Amino acid sequence: MVGVKVERLLINYKTLEDFKRFQAYGTQELSMLEDLQNEIVEDDSESPFYGIYYGENLVARMSLYKRSAKFDHYFNPPQDYLVLFKLEVLPDFRGRGYGKLLVDYAKESQLPIKTNPMIRPDANEFWKKMGFEMASYNIERDFGENPFIWMPEGVKEAIQPPAASSQQPKTKKTKKEDK
Amino acid sequence: MVGVKVERLLINYKTLEDFKRFQAYGTQELSMLEDLQNEIVEDDSESPFYGIYYGENLVARMSLYKRSAKFDHYFNPPQDYLVLFKLEVLPDFRGRGYGKLLVDYAKESQLPIKTNPMIRPDANEFWKKMGFEMASYNIERDFGENPFIWMPEGVKEAIQPPAASSQQPKTKKTKKEDK
Repeated sequence: MVGVKVERLLINYKTLEDFKRFQAYGTQELSMLEDLQNEIVEDDSESPFYGIYYGENLVARMSLYKRSAKFDHYFNPPQDYLVLFKLEVLPDFRGRGYGKLLVDYAKESQLPIKTNPMIRPDANEFWKKMGFEMASYNIERDFGENPFIWMPEGVKEAIQPPAASSQQPKTKKTKKEDK
Repeated sequence: MVGVKVERLLINYKTLEDFKRFQAYGTQELSMLEDLQNEIVEDDSESPFYGIYYGENLVARMSLYKRSAKFDHYFNPPQDYLVLFKLEVLPDFRGRGYGKLLVDYAKESQLPIKTNPMIRPDANEFWKKMGFEMASYNIERDFGENPFIWMPEGVKEAIQPPAASSQQPKTKKTKKEDK
């Protein structure tokens, strides 16, 4: 794709305004805006976001965060890995391979990747096409997430302890449960 | 609300069929179905889900999971707390207070609660009405989440270490970043 490239996004008022067009705009973006307003971060600081511009317009983005091996509960052996989140292409720019371009960029690091697809009927299909697989669900680790993982050669999924895959949470017992 | 009550849901084929009507149906539900089919869990085991039936139909649900103090990064002092997720009322049954009924049920434990609102324009408003507040965002803890917390009397939000609120992730440097 000529002229289309992935860039690391800078935190400034234009970027934060651009972010408002994405569905996953939330607490993270609000916090970035506040940090900028309070001069906790400088204008044009590097952000954890990467994106694709079409002319002046940000039309796709994702966030990448590198976690250290000591927090790894997804891969075997435990190792540094990337958490990829808020991957999103604006509706008018879908079907052009921009999502794949972002995912390929993340894969270049050759670190395993964990993501949590947004709830969209075709999300699972997309991640499978990208070479990701559905991780075994573990309530204590994943809560409401739908973890998908990508593993470079030689990396396997972490083995889940049998107890962790149980459906029995240690939730409260209250008087309402005497049915 | 006469006749409307919150029940702990049992894992069986009917419940899992009911779950398909909820938007947040995902890896967790698929994993429960698989566990049931493989007889890893017994029919009618208790689930981490609580719900409201309208006649025979499940019309609202949430999942609750109690986390131990040693994993608490949201409250001060660190303590056992509940993670509330997948709170959802089916569209035809909204505006009847069913969501509040579920949240009130969770609050009865008097444990602090952490949730991650689904991305919906009115979600933040709802949680504020429920007495929750937006937690300070911490990328390493929250990634793509929009954490909201509820604190019973005497509990405060955890103090964030200054480094943790930084927008600078330790992401990879690649050749594409030489802009």
